[in-house]
Amino acid sequence: MHMHPAAEIGMPLDAVDTPALLVDLDALERNIQRMAKAVTQSSVTLRPHAKSHKCPVIALRQMAAGAIGVCCQKVGEAEAMVYGGVPNVLVSNQIVGTGKIARLVALAKQAWVAVCADHPANVQSLNEAAPAFGVRLPVLVESNVGMDRCGVEPGEPVVALAKQIAASPGLRFAGLQAYHGSAQHLREYSKREEAIGLAVAKISQSVELLSRHGLACEMITGAGTGTYRFEAASGVYTELQAGSYIFMDADYAKNLALDGNPTSDFEHSLFVWATVMSRPTKERAVLDAGHKALSIDAGLPWVAGMPDVEYIRAADEHGKLTLRDPNRALELGSKLRLIPGHCDPTVNLYDWFVGYRKDRVEAIWPIAARGASR
Amino acid sequence: MHMHPAAEIGMPLDAVDTPALLVDLDALERNIQRMAKAVTQSSVTLRPHAKSHKCPVIALRQMAAGAIGVCCQKVGEAEAMVYGGVPNVLVSNQIVGTGKIARLVALAKQAWVAVCADHPANVQSLNEAAPAFGVRLPVLVESNVGMDRCGVEPGEPVVALAKQIAASPGLRFAGLQAYHGSAQHLREYSKREEAIGLAVAKISQSVELLSRHGLACEMITGAGTGTYRFEAASGVYTELQAGSYIFMDADYAKNLALDGNPTSDFEHSLFVWATVMSRPTKERAVLDAGHKALSIDAGLPWVAGMPDVEYIRAADEHGKLTLRDPNRALELGSKLRLIPGHCDPTVNLYDWFVGYRKDRVEAIWPIAARGASR
Repeated sequence: MHMHPAAEIGMPLDAVDTPALLVDLDALERNIQRMAKAVTQSSVTLRPHAKSHKCPVIALRQMAAGAIGVCCQKVGEAEAMVYGGVPNVLVSNQIVGTGKIARLVALAKQAWVAVCADHPANVQSLNEAAPAFGVRLPVLVESNVGMDRCGVEPGEPVVALAKQIAASPGLRFAGLQAYHGSAQHLREYSKREEAIGLAVAKISQSVELLSRHGLACEMITGAGTGTYRFEAASGVYTELQAGSYIFMDADYAKNLALDGNPTSDFEHSLFVWATVMSRPTKERAVLDAGHKALSIDAGLPWVAGMPDVEYIRAADEHGKLTLRDPNRALELGSKLRLIPGHCDPTVNLYDWFVGYRKDRVEAIWPIAARGASR
Repeated sequence: MHMHPAAEIGMPLDAVDTPALLVDLDALERNIQRMAKAVTQSSVTLRPHAKSHKCPVIALRQMAAGAIGVCCQKVGEAEAMVYGGVPNVLVSNQIVGTGKIARLVALAKQAWVAVCADHPANVQSLNEAAPAFGVRLPVLVESNVGMDRCGVEPGEPVVALAKQIAASPGLRFAGLQAYHGSAQHLREYSKREEAIGLAVAKISQSVELLSRHGLACEMITGAGTGTYRFEAASGVYTELQAGSYIFMDADYAKNLALDGNPTSDFEHSLFVWATVMSRPTKERAVLDAGHKALSIDAGLPWVAGMPDVEYIRAADEHGKLTLRDPNRALELGSKLRLIPGHCDPTVNLYDWFVGYRKDRVEAIWPIAARGASR
């Protein structure tokens, strides 16, 4: 069932039903501008990851501020983006399976769409599917630069797969996918810098080898909100894929900057709006937002603007709060904003963003790729 | 975006796209029959929790096997059940907020709908809303019987709230909500038995006190899949609210029976169908199902039928497997079944159940209350 929105445009924020997924539009816009500025001052371009917002409206705002397109992880996400007007999508992932590959190739006829590969059999499947739609599909080799998930190892394995792509009539070798996921949440600045330094060395080795085989990398793409400064300054990466920067969840806010203080590059703009539904003791309050309303895979949410109130436990539909200040009223029916531990999977639980400015609802945006897991 | 189903009826299971939420219909039906039999042999009735499946089709099958109705946690879930033909719904939770209460009371005109309360202000709001729809709403007092979440304390506080309900012209005092959530996953049989023993003592005390004030409990409702045997045998509870038993997730399967072996009351019937999308090393495979495809709040999934393959890490869209048997092929494109750590929030990620029997798709059921968090 597609849920109706929790709000109407023009409503005061207080009147919005809960749980609802709020976006502070001023904060969102400042985050978009800040990343745009950081990119302008570097030699890279920005291709934000749409897995964070799953919303073409936000993607088009990122492009209006200079982004060259978006990344997606799934064909369903890419379809939502292209159908929503985004002309340029990199599927920064492997797409395996006949049905999915057909959808991918068909989509590449409607917009610029590229994909990643890390296996010869997958390259062969992509090459076999492309002619049916008269498409020559750009394919990047995904290389493992430190997170040990997908990707071929740097050096010779990259060259071997790139050669196969270049020799496939339905495909075009487009460069390298080199995302270092496990570096994003290393808390210390120097650890993140070091991890990306190692990734850059691996990529440089592969690029050098590819070049000796006459294979040029049009794109070398990677980076996230935790490390984008290092990739931007690397001289090797051509694109940044950061996504979470627009929302800035609690997990990313735990990263430390060079000076040892929490990073302050971006502001929290995404919140789960919740109601106090039970008030059993002076120290305990219960919210109507548990882990079906916000993902706890990367930790519990923070209560915005109430450092004396701690969200200590999430059940399916309940969030338990501990109140440390005896003067904190927090009466039954009060509403408050939660900063999710992890923005991406939290967004995936909702059908709509409720965009507000100051304390008035201004926009209700469909989360077009919610649940687009295929 | 409402996703189209991953399958068509009649398809062989192998052809179903991934990730998809599979239900083994034989196993589901056996679980429904087993619980029905356990209840028949006791003096309680069964009111399964629909928060687990969010699907009226399954609710009606439970009722066909003897259940008297269902429980829900949210008004949106109750709406989906009533609109789907379920005539009897207990909202086993507090409903706070004018809009939600109006929806609840209006729904009580269309079916038998009851709700819980644990706060005088909430009882007052319910009482004020009921007349507009000409409804006399049955209200249960939620009592804290050990999990320290919602609910008034046993004894005098229960009586005070019950009296307020009984004195409210728009409401009717219907009994006690006494669910002990934190007892459900105590691994040892004796610990679960002990926890429910304590809950039963608390309820008995409240019932005795209520009786002295001339207040009878038509319903005393609680229990989950981890403890239902104890509530069924308690002589105090009148209803069981177990929900997960139809699916039996990995977390519940870790509970131990009286003989110290894992509990075997029910079978796993719910699976996430996933594809091997990367095969970077002999020991490592990566699936297209991460924590946007299955909830990891209660632990990682198990790989069905492959004890030598371990799901060791979930990212948003990736599941990393370790292969302990060097002879395990698990080629690129292979599909396998994952047993989710926690069924309820996993179901909430999907729009459809793909029901199969042996290896053929037989039913595609809409998850009508997916995302019904309000």
